[in-house]
Amino acid sequence: MKTPVEYINSNGERFVQELADMLRIESVSTDPAYRDEVARCAGYIHRHLEKVGFKVQTFETKRHPIVYAEWLGAKGRPTALIYGHYDVQPPDPLELWRTGPFEPTMADGNIYARGASDDKGQFLAHVKAAEAYLKTAGQLPVNVKFILEGEEEVGSGSLAQFIKSHTDLLRADVLIVSDSSQFEAGIPAITYALRGIVAAEVVVRGPNQDLHSGGFGGSVANPANVLAKIISQFHDEHGRVTVPGFYDDVLPLAEWEREAWSALPFDEEEYRQFLGVKELYGEEGFSSLERRWARPTLDVNGIYGGYMGEGSKTIVPSSAGAKISMRLVPNQDPERIGRSFEEHVRALCPSTVELMMTKAHGSPPLLLPSEGPTMDAAAEAYRKGFGVKPVLIRQGGSIPIVTTFVEHLKVPAILMGFGRPDDNLHSPNEKLNLEDFHKAILASAYLLEGLGGA
Amino acid sequence: MKTPVEYINSNGERFVQELADMLRIESVSTDPAYRDEVARCAGYIHRHLEKVGFKVQTFETKRHPIVYAEWLGAKGRPTALIYGHYDVQPPDPLELWRTGPFEPTMADGNIYARGASDDKGQFLAHVKAAEAYLKTAGQLPVNVKFILEGEEEVGSGSLAQFIKSHTDLLRADVLIVSDSSQFEAGIPAITYALRGIVAAEVVVRGPNQDLHSGGFGGSVANPANVLAKIISQFHDEHGRVTVPGFYDDVLPLAEWEREAWSALPFDEEEYRQFLGVKELYGEEGFSSLERRWARPTLDVNGIYGGYMGEGSKTIVPSSAGAKISMRLVPNQDPERIGRSFEEHVRALCPSTVELMMTKAHGSPPLLLPSEGPTMDAAAEAYRKGFGVKPVLIRQGGSIPIVTTFVEHLKVPAILMGFGRPDDNLHSPNEKLNLEDFHKAILASAYLLEGLGGA
Repeated sequence: MKTPVEYINSNGERFVQELADMLRIESVSTDPAYRDEVARCAGYIHRHLEKVGFKVQTFETKRHPIVYAEWLGAKGRPTALIYGHYDVQPPDPLELWRTGPFEPTMADGNIYARGASDDKGQFLAHVKAAEAYLKTAGQLPVNVKFILEGEEEVGSGSLAQFIKSHTDLLRADVLIVSDSSQFEAGIPAITYALRGIVAAEVVVRGPNQDLHSGGFGGSVANPANVLAKIISQFHDEHGRVTVPGFYDDVLPLAEWEREAWSALPFDEEEYRQFLGVKELYGEEGFSSLERRWARPTLDVNGIYGGYMGEGSKTIVPSSAGAKISMRLVPNQDPERIGRSFEEHVRALCPSTVELMMTKAHGSPPLLLPSEGPTMDAAAEAYRKGFGVKPVLIRQGGSIPIVTTFVEHLKVPAILMGFGRPDDNLHSPNEKLNLEDFHKAILASAYLLEGLGGA
Repeated sequence: MKTPVEYINSNGERFVQELADMLRIESVSTDPAYRDEVARCAGYIHRHLEKVGFKVQTFETKRHPIVYAEWLGAKGRPTALIYGHYDVQPPDPLELWRTGPFEPTMADGNIYARGASDDKGQFLAHVKAAEAYLKTAGQLPVNVKFILEGEEEVGSGSLAQFIKSHTDLLRADVLIVSDSSQFEAGIPAITYALRGIVAAEVVVRGPNQDLHSGGFGGSVANPANVLAKIISQFHDEHGRVTVPGFYDDVLPLAEWEREAWSALPFDEEEYRQFLGVKELYGEEGFSSLERRWARPTLDVNGIYGGYMGEGSKTIVPSSAGAKISMRLVPNQDPERIGRSFEEHVRALCPSTVELMMTKAHGSPPLLLPSEGPTMDAAAEAYRKGFGVKPVLIRQGGSIPIVTTFVEHLKVPAILMGFGRPDDNLHSPNEKLNLEDFHKAILASAYLLEGLGGA
């Protein structure tokens, strides 16, 4: 009788083939043309989890199915809820892929395909770890629930509803999410905080139509100039956001965080070259990692107005607009910041133009406990699976569904990413390192073992 | 034997039919698909001027033909050079026309068609005035040269070359241009100054690709925010342009100008309603007419960057750009202002981004003598033709080809517009008032008479 680890080590090739099978399914969630493929992927996963030994239910939603699976045979032991998503980003621009996005290809020790890292390969690692236990020991060290959605790339709308109406079904002692990445190749990371977000669109309207800039220019406020003036006042000379009360609730960085992050192998000059900018820039008094992970921001995501084509057209535009997003950090409140932003814009807007704004909306930041038994179990699992102690990091992006889980299930979460920062998520030539895939399965198996003993 | 005026009064209907014939020709100069129609229009005018009694030559160019016609039988008398353009703007958006843009239609005392006012109806008035003399007296009171181009709506490139290489052919004592409008219906106007223009495009480049605003936002200068900051510094709090030296050469308004313009029937509140803005705005200390006619400006004509589609995409854009134009007044120099603008932008641009700029280019402002015998002749012609004394005005727009004529032929110019401000130039439902067309022919006849006696 093999051990789970022996089972994992001797079935590696089949696991990769099974990943490739799932990657061949074109489960693009945003485009209705792929709707049947998304449903086919849900069906594939449903049958696969049944074969592994789970009791599976597929829930139809207004959009794409939610696959739920459970094995609850570990009486008296904790329950782990493992989240993943089987939908993928569109593959465009197709011409930049070296091999077909839905024709999984092995090269350079990686598997190349849309969804390899985001997120099919990552959640499959947990499925394979569970299989290793069920096919050897015949049972799992803990109770396990899988919740796999098909709408992560389009906002997780159905799952957010589902969580609220199925709190009993989903009840668990720990939430495990593998939809992020290692800090860098070979340095696995546990993420204990995410930024939140508030976004809004600001439109400034002037004359009732585009005007000839010769005939009328100089006698009427130019909406593009006015918009630029408003935007220019969103930051002060220290790179700080001027929205009143913006920093009031910001949780300052702990001393241990600044120390730990400055010890990470992160080189500001390499980062500058990676971005391709002349100089790095951000809020004074913070390092790049601190700015990305633990400081709130305000960015123009898009700006438009007047003549945007080739050559010139000398007009005073009738209107101009900008899409703005703010990234929030613990403990900022999206509603409060959104309201303050709206008031700020209104106060900055001169009476010569009309202001139109979409209602600011967003999702809160997330801060998880950075220590405790589940964290210890995750760190130990990484250490055994990857052979390295993981680092504790935050992330600059937002995963709103994690917040929904945490808030509604009152469950501690562990964000353990198996991908790499250069996996080309949302870009051509997405990949997953095959050695990491193998280590991830091992780490997941050690995690289940650790949680069972915790 | 009729007098020229009797001839004009008894041939009015035929003149309108001839205008309609010319308006049926779709002489859109910017679109290569209309090239044959532009050539057909030149041919129509060539034959028409021959029938009237002129010696006509059509000059082929790289783009659209130039029609030149002369009658030089008034020995010892001055020579008038009459400029016009037979090309028209594209008719789009077609769905907003009540009748076909190339199916001239009479309604409400107007003729509706693309080119009715800009400029076919206006130069035809001069042709019909000449015809009235030649078909009655058998001769003109002065020598007359017509120069009619087919590229005014696309920059007059060929004619600018032609003027420089045909100064002898075009030599004249006065240049007459009717390509503008009355101050308002019933108040004819002589324009003695035009604004010049300098335009450039400013592009700010940051990271080598659009970045996820969660993962990277806050750690890199956002090109759209930087561009907004640059643009916000182009004006001070008094609405004045901050480009160094911008006002150094500006000719101050003369006392008589400010007095004369404030006496014009111009209502600031009506103007505000016409523009549809909440408040008027411009350089402090000047009226709207002064701001439009005699003060230099800086306007954003277009601004773009990042995600400009529906909804949101939370990125830090890789770059952002703006199209900028400045209107210049006498005696500002486009080259000097252009250089100063470029230096100004460079000085305002932070070192965190890369700056790309198209070379600023433009054309100088124009200031004509506002008194003298030709001006008197024009005013008297208007008085007799329209029954009202004209007002002396400036215009905010630029007609670069007039400056080229004036500079290269050293000729005084009279800009006498027959259209109305609401003729919908460059817009759907362009029109010309038929009574004004008739009065314009009379005024032109009186002008030829007056110039002959001057």
